[in-house]
Amino acid sequence: MRPEINKSWQMSGFGLSRLEPAEGKIPKPGSRDLLVRIKAVSLNYKDRMIVDGVLIPDLAFPFVPTSDAVGEVMAIGSEVSRFRVGQRVLGQVIADWLDGDAPPVLHKHTLGSSLPGTLSDYVLFHEDAAVVAPQSLGDVEASTLPIAALTAWFALVEATKPIPGETVLIQGTGGVSLFALQFAAAFGLRAIVTSSSDEKLERATGLGAWQVINYRAQPAWDEAARDLTDGVGVRHVLEMVGGDNARRSLNALGADGRLSVIGLLGGMELSFPIIPFLQNRIVVQGISIGHRRAFERMNEAIETLAIKPVIDKVYGFDEVPQAFEHLETGPFGKIVIAGS
Amino acid sequence: MRPEINKSWQMSGFGLSRLEPAEGKIPKPGSRDLLVRIKAVSLNYKDRMIVDGVLIPDLAFPFVPTSDAVGEVMAIGSEVSRFRVGQRVLGQVIADWLDGDAPPVLHKHTLGSSLPGTLSDYVLFHEDAAVVAPQSLGDVEASTLPIAALTAWFALVEATKPIPGETVLIQGTGGVSLFALQFAAAFGLRAIVTSSSDEKLERATGLGAWQVINYRAQPAWDEAARDLTDGVGVRHVLEMVGGDNARRSLNALGADGRLSVIGLLGGMELSFPIIPFLQNRIVVQGISIGHRRAFERMNEAIETLAIKPVIDKVYGFDEVPQAFEHLETGPFGKIVIAGS
Amino acid sequence: MRPEINKSWQMSGFGLSRLEPAEGKIPKPGSRDLLVRIKAVSLNYKDRMIVDGVLIPDLAFPFVPTSDAVGEVMAIGSEVSRFRVGQRVLGQVIADWLDGDAPPVLHKHTLGSSLPGTLSDYVLFHEDAAVVAPQSLGDVEASTLPIAALTAWFALVEATKPIPGETVLIQGTGGVSLFALQFAAAFGLRAIVTSSSDEKLERATGLGAWQVINYRAQPAWDEAARDLTDGVGVRHVLEMVGGDNARRSLNALGADGRLSVIGLLGGMELSFPIIPFLQNRIVVQGISIGHRRAFERMNEAIETLAIKPVIDKVYGFDEVPQAFEHLETGPFGKIVIAGS
Amino acid sequence: MRPEINKSWQMSGFGLSRLEPAEGKIPKPGSRDLLVRIKAVSLNYKDRMIVDGVLIPDLAFPFVPTSDAVGEVMAIGSEVSRFRVGQRVLGQVIADWLDGDAPPVLHKHTLGSSLPGTLSDYVLFHEDAAVVAPQSLGDVEASTLPIAALTAWFALVEATKPIPGETVLIQGTGGVSLFALQFAAAFGLRAIVTSSSDEKLERATGLGAWQVINYRAQPAWDEAARDLTDGVGVRHVLEMVGGDNARRSLNALGADGRLSVIGLLGGMELSFPIIPFLQNRIVVQGISIGHRRAFERMNEAIETLAIKPVIDKVYGFDEVPQAFEHLETGPFGKIVIAGS
Repeated sequence: MRPEINKSWQMSGFGLSRLEPAEGKIPKPGSRDLLVRIKAVSLNYKDRMIVDGVLIPDLAFPFVPTSDAVGEVMAIGSEVSRFRVGQRVLGQVIADWLDGDAPPVLHKHTLGSSLPGTLSDYVLFHEDAAVVAPQSLGDVEASTLPIAALTAWFALVEATKPIPGETVLIQGTGGVSLFALQFAAAFGLRAIVTSSSDEKLERATGLGAWQVINYRAQPAWDEAARDLTDGVGVRHVLEMVGGDNARRSLNALGADGRLSVIGLLGGMELSFPIIPFLQNRIVVQGISIGHRRAFERMNEAIETLAIKPVIDKVYGFDEVPQAFEHLETGPFGKIVIAGS
Repeated sequence: MRPEINKSWQMSGFGLSRLEPAEGKIPKPGSRDLLVRIKAVSLNYKDRMIVDGVLIPDLAFPFVPTSDAVGEVMAIGSEVSRFRVGQRVLGQVIADWLDGDAPPVLHKHTLGSSLPGTLSDYVLFHEDAAVVAPQSLGDVEASTLPIAALTAWFALVEATKPIPGETVLIQGTGGVSLFALQFAAAFGLRAIVTSSSDEKLERATGLGAWQVINYRAQPAWDEAARDLTDGVGVRHVLEMVGGDNARRSLNALGADGRLSVIGLLGGMELSFPIIPFLQNRIVVQGISIGHRRAFERMNEAIETLAIKPVIDKVYGFDEVPQAFEHLETGPFGKIVIAGS
Repeated sequence: MRPEINKSWQMSGFGLSRLEPAEGKIPKPGSRDLLVRIKAVSLNYKDRMIVDGVLIPDLAFPFVPTSDAVGEVMAIGSEVSRFRVGQRVLGQVIADWLDGDAPPVLHKHTLGSSLPGTLSDYVLFHEDAAVVAPQSLGDVEASTLPIAALTAWFALVEATKPIPGETVLIQGTGGVSLFALQFAAAFGLRAIVTSSSDEKLERATGLGAWQVINYRAQPAWDEAARDLTDGVGVRHVLEMVGGDNARRSLNALGADGRLSVIGLLGGMELSFPIIPFLQNRIVVQGISIGHRRAFERMNEAIETLAIKPVIDKVYGFDEVPQAFEHLETGPFGKIVIAGS
Repeated sequence: MRPEINKSWQMSGFGLSRLEPAEGKIPKPGSRDLLVRIKAVSLNYKDRMIVDGVLIPDLAFPFVPTSDAVGEVMAIGSEVSRFRVGQRVLGQVIADWLDGDAPPVLHKHTLGSSLPGTLSDYVLFHEDAAVVAPQSLGDVEASTLPIAALTAWFALVEATKPIPGETVLIQGTGGVSLFALQFAAAFGLRAIVTSSSDEKLERATGLGAWQVINYRAQPAWDEAARDLTDGVGVRHVLEMVGGDNARRSLNALGADGRLSVIGLLGGMELSFPIIPFLQNRIVVQGISIGHRRAFERMNEAIETLAIKPVIDKVYGFDEVPQAFEHLETGPFGKIVIAGS
């Protein structure tokens, strides 16, 4: 590593084959910026959608992808007051959402989207858009928090009121789902996990799932969930799929149930029958990661609860394409790229 | 009127032609019942759907329809403590929903549905399922509150937090919509009303609408609503139609917007594109009338705010079929049947 | 035991010496009552205050004290629909508070206060004022829930929004405090417990306390609590003492802190300096047990979380005076009287 | 006016006699600052407490007091994006509270306290700590919003959920109280106003008070308030006095009542009897102005509701001492100092 050079992975166009190593200068922090030496980057499925040109069709190239990263503050701008050199920080992905309601137009200042991504040796974070990483986690673990953990936390804790003992159904065992499972178990919620793999469900049970449903064995997993709740229905479903799957989610819910919509792997549409939706007074809410204050609260909770992110595999900085390919195969937990 | 006889309109089967006058005995109040002499009944569209066999296909006949009614307490059961003879009362339509969350299974005890309706000279209300009618309203006016007003109130006040100055878009000028408009104007909300009739929109303006949109002249009423809010989008939409209309509703909403789903005239399905739903963190909530505590709070507000329900026409007790027919023609405000 | 006789402990006047065994008839259930054979009764400090004439100076004698009890349904009234014979039930202490806001006048229908108490072989519960006991608990354990557990649950879960990772300071190790500690630990809150006894603090640590403070060793326990939170201050304090103690509680709180006022052993007044109260935007809330819906939710959580009430000692039905005397000595957990 | 000179009123020590005119240079905006030409300044009672040395005993001199001001943006720093030259702006008094929870330490960045005040021709506002003034108000009117109006708004709308028809008791007719009255009337709340002056009460009625109480004629104004609510008690009291007055406020409240503590003219302590506090489950909350998002929402509401601040008197920029003296005499509405 030559310290004066900033190595990155850059997209010169859409498609994984056009994501390539590049070298540039180390950026200079503006008056309120942090210069951060990246230690680890974690991948989210939306990174793959951006690389493939599905999510942001009008992206300008070259573009450095990924949003989630942990690193060390190497230098700070002249007016920085929230951080000091040497601290280990995480980027706040929706950089201008600090607390309360979101900015009127979301994603004007989002890491790895409207702002450059984090797949570099060095990046700049505005001091308002960073938080201290939890001391209880190593670099690889900490890198997984900014999107996957915060999304799960926001759905379970911030956007609603978690009441211990309530049931929550979590779809699948991807990054967000496993954080949701770990949080739910730690808060005293009864988590039901669905998957098509008995082996994954067994691991979910090990992470604290109250009940599991193999939706390959039981395609009517919504009815299975109702049975598990003595016919009452589930209180909260985390929708990771969208499309027709959401109809089953709605059916799994009981009176005053809540559907947090997070993922869209199964379709770009949501649709429901309206009568049960009205009779059960269902609330459906779209979730978009979360604000910085929630990130700070979550980090407190992760330390208190001794939660350890589930890592499927760590790749080297020269193995980025392999890491992206792994993402397609349904990992159990997070894919991380160690810093160079 | 022979006081010992209880005149009703009874369904002997589905269809308006099978809704006919009938005579029976005046019921005897059980230990916690109120015997109520009905003074006025108001119609809701769901009454027509019940008469037509659309809403409750397995209804047992004979059946007395309608839910909304005001009357005078003529006698009380031996253990009644909440009311006394001579008071003027309104029935709580979801009879077992008193406060907080709804009962696990809604509509096990609903007037004019699982319980007998109110289109009779005399009905029994359980004392837990009645409230005192506002003194500021006459009988015809008061009869309109139990469903239309309470649904609008619940969507605007109970299920969310009304913040004066916020925008709310109200679809159409039916019973719920006009109550929503009157409440919104009285709370300092900026109400946008849509209709296909300029004449109705003019009357809506007279009732306090901040802006109006004729959706026949402007089929892209969602874009018109965005324009009225300087591109920010509306904060709250009351969905009265369902089906494809809900797609426009979603598009009219700004960040952190809310869609209260109330009506389903336009379809039995709700469907949305998922990306804007996520990015704007939209909340969609099904509304099912409301609980008794909300009814009491609303009555306080109606008196305080001097709100007068909008009545389109009052029919005699012998004109019930005509009243039901009027309902089909898109009245401006409520259709009421005066007591016999 | 002669089954036709109902044995009780009755107050013929104020003072423990006037609490004496009595015999009467087994009551007949009214149409919506449950006849319950009592299996265990737990004591609360307010029971002692009632026996001593401190809490209800105008009590009418004879009076059967105590509120908390578990028992088996032996017979039901003709209109009972919520329960069946053979179920094990707990009484809802504020019998007319089912959900949402409380009745306008509290304690018009409160067990062991305006209603007769539970220190009898047989009592009547109105079916609306009972819940099923958690299956995971034995009789002695279950008897402790109606006041102590529900008060702790209401303060931590219902009256506010519990956010895992937040700090909560719990004063003492009485019945409410230990339930609060067990709930807090199970929800992922960081519980700080205060006591004058190192031995009790050690046991509190065993129950999940994050930190403990011996207020005899550290009379400025408020400052000790601030230190434990890196100077930020505690998020929530459960005030069990009142009087001057509340001044320290206020000082222990950080910005947007909350003080739940539960106990009043230390004085009949609350007083605070107003400037820090304003600057930190403190919320102080009075807690009065809780409603039936909360009781049901809590029971779900107790089963899910496998929480076992801490019992200090169980007395026989003929040892009631000894049990009351024990209450004065600062037990660690609950004092229970087994049924006759 | 020589444009290169910045005229101010400066404190060289405590006491009104040491608040004197001064001249300095016009400040240069930093990269994210707005240079604002002040058009009008309004006084709050805390300004007098600062001038007198009561509120901030360790103030460093010279010091320019006052917080509330409206002005025109004359120049902007190089990185400003939220404003442009020519806009009319108001300062956000707690400059680092933008939304959600407050910063951990309040008043580290507060106008006219830890930051310089506004009693100058020119001041700098950080672009994050300013909002656009409502177009519906003139300069004198707009200058009154930052503290008095926002405090009333925060207590009535942000810190709680306003439900039309509910009762709110407002103490006195000072700046915060009159805004609270105007907001309450516009939201459909039933406002009860107390004062010692029948003439002021008459004017309060003109502004929309539902009921008024002269506490000189009725020293037991708490009982008078209970009577006005048929014995139920008031839902919300805005405490403007503190000290023993708060005991009456508590007594005026009904079940689940709320006491928003705002003022402290009557004492530096709050004290209550604990039993009614517990039995009614009272919530007492300290109010500290509010955040920027609330300020923006309030301005929308002020425009929508056509609310016009009540101005008692406008002084010239050379009459600052007279304006401060007026403040002591109990004005009806706000005292404003026009810009030089």
